[in-house]
Amino acid sequence: MINKLVKKIEENKAPIVVGLDPMLSYVPEFLQKKAWEQYGETLEGAAEAIWQYNKGIIDAIYDLVPAVKPQIAMYEQFGIPGLEAFKKTVDYCKEKDLVVIGDVKRGDIGSTSTAYATAHIGKIKIGNNSYVPFAEDFMTVNPYFGIDGIKPYLDVCKEEKRGIFILVKTSNPSSGEFQDQLVDGKPLYELVARKVAKWGEECMGDSYSYVGCVIGATYPEMGKALREIMPKQYILVPGYGAQGGKAEDLAPYFNKDGLGAIINSSRGIIAAYKKPEYAKYGETSYADASRQAVIDMREDINRVLVSH
Amino acid sequence: MINKLVKKIEENKAPIVVGLDPMLSYVPEFLQKKAWEQYGETLEGAAEAIWQYNKGIIDAIYDLVPAVKPQIAMYEQFGIPGLEAFKKTVDYCKEKDLVVIGDVKRGDIGSTSTAYATAHIGKIKIGNNSYVPFAEDFMTVNPYFGIDGIKPYLDVCKEEKRGIFILVKTSNPSSGEFQDQLVDGKPLYELVARKVAKWGEECMGDSYSYVGCVIGATYPEMGKALREIMPKQYILVPGYGAQGGKAEDLAPYFNKDGLGAIINSSRGIIAAYKKPEYAKYGETSYADASRQAVIDMREDINRVLVSH
Repeated sequence: MINKLVKKIEENKAPIVVGLDPMLSYVPEFLQKKAWEQYGETLEGAAEAIWQYNKGIIDAIYDLVPAVKPQIAMYEQFGIPGLEAFKKTVDYCKEKDLVVIGDVKRGDIGSTSTAYATAHIGKIKIGNNSYVPFAEDFMTVNPYFGIDGIKPYLDVCKEEKRGIFILVKTSNPSSGEFQDQLVDGKPLYELVARKVAKWGEECMGDSYSYVGCVIGATYPEMGKALREIMPKQYILVPGYGAQGGKAEDLAPYFNKDGLGAIINSSRGIIAAYKKPEYAKYGETSYADASRQAVIDMREDINRVLVSH
Repeated sequence: MINKLVKKIEENKAPIVVGLDPMLSYVPEFLQKKAWEQYGETLEGAAEAIWQYNKGIIDAIYDLVPAVKPQIAMYEQFGIPGLEAFKKTVDYCKEKDLVVIGDVKRGDIGSTSTAYATAHIGKIKIGNNSYVPFAEDFMTVNPYFGIDGIKPYLDVCKEEKRGIFILVKTSNPSSGEFQDQLVDGKPLYELVARKVAKWGEECMGDSYSYVGCVIGATYPEMGKALREIMPKQYILVPGYGAQGGKAEDLAPYFNKDGLGAIINSSRGIIAAYKKPEYAKYGETSYADASRQAVIDMREDINRVLVSH
């Protein structure tokens, strides 16, 4: 799946992943109204609203980007109907041949991580049958448990040719509270990065590992150091746009081949129609605004990559 | 909710939480057969099998223990039907007046953590209505993001009088890989513990905080040090029984008042009928075996607490 991701990034000339993190407040009135008419102001109604909203965006952008990253929390907050909308979204994106990164940030002891890996990137055997519970291509994983919390994912990655992105340095303001603490004179996130590089060796695709990492866009200096520690890791970079990361800051995350990083934008794309520069599209053409925002983001990032 | 947990622990004289972590291989043949007859060897069938299995155990133990801890991964691996079984299990436990600790180990940046807190211990507003998506009383949380990944949970705890258990030192063999790294001469888990104690100050119940922590049963020495750092935290202790923790090791996790810790057993209780000492119950009386295992565990732990 990492080979497919790299190929699609090259074909689209877009190292971009669109974060499908719908908030009810992003969903245009007309879609909300339709959903309430059908299901009432219920969990089912909210789930329908975010699903229809997603579908509009996916239809508008699927030919421009290699990948999407639905954040499961945004669905989980609508209970079972919300998780059904998550599944519908994943399935629809796969129909459109998009690479799907499940942003689930799971992490636990071994036997439990096996269950999470099965749920998101694996298969479950029931009697003589086998099922794919959620069918993402990649999932994000928390490293706090160390290798025996990670190994079950590696096993499933090898078996299924799917992948994971392990949190190394997150994009939020307080990420340094634990991640930046010095261990033998080096920040903890560097130790995590060295482990990720090592773990990734046994899951190599053609040029990159099935085991990637997450590093926030807000730390270009750290990005540079971490890039060197993990040359074979794809870096999933959240924090561009809404969280303050600028295209100029992104160059250090890429390798000399112009590959090795994929930049996430969520709100900046999916709620583009709410921004002054795309206001002309209006609510009913929210998906066209998202398409234009992708085009603009692609240009913004490629400008920096060319001069890199 | 922490007050209710403490009260129920005292009433039952049982600082015990039963981990409802069903594996399909634990479910007795006769229940599996019934589920396959009804739904086939499908995700729905598996979900029905684990739900019926859980129900039998809950009916057999609810008057003996204060709390249960369903591990969501074990349900998530069966997709949407599995998560429906999770919800049914939570709801049924609440009907039986059990305190429910959702073992979900979520953790993310602020806005995403808000969504997770809403999903598991909060309420979601949809138009003029408000819904409780999953309705646990407590949830487990990963600290890797630092305070702004934790604050949304604290806010919901205060609002809803529900609680969280933050991972400090996990029970798995490789937990030390990052958690034991020395930061200013002290292990990282101690730094996390000091933060947990601080964060918990603003969410106090009568004698304990709504913010507890998780420390594996396999480290009695660490338990002692961490108990002192976090006198107001309830410690959720996994790893007793199947993972190798012994009752003798548990004393340091408790305060002098005999409170302050709650010991989890999963497989040792729910799959008791598979152990030689409970084999006499047989498959069909698997729930009676679980009941006896709870009684034996209670005795085992109280023996140590008395001499404490």
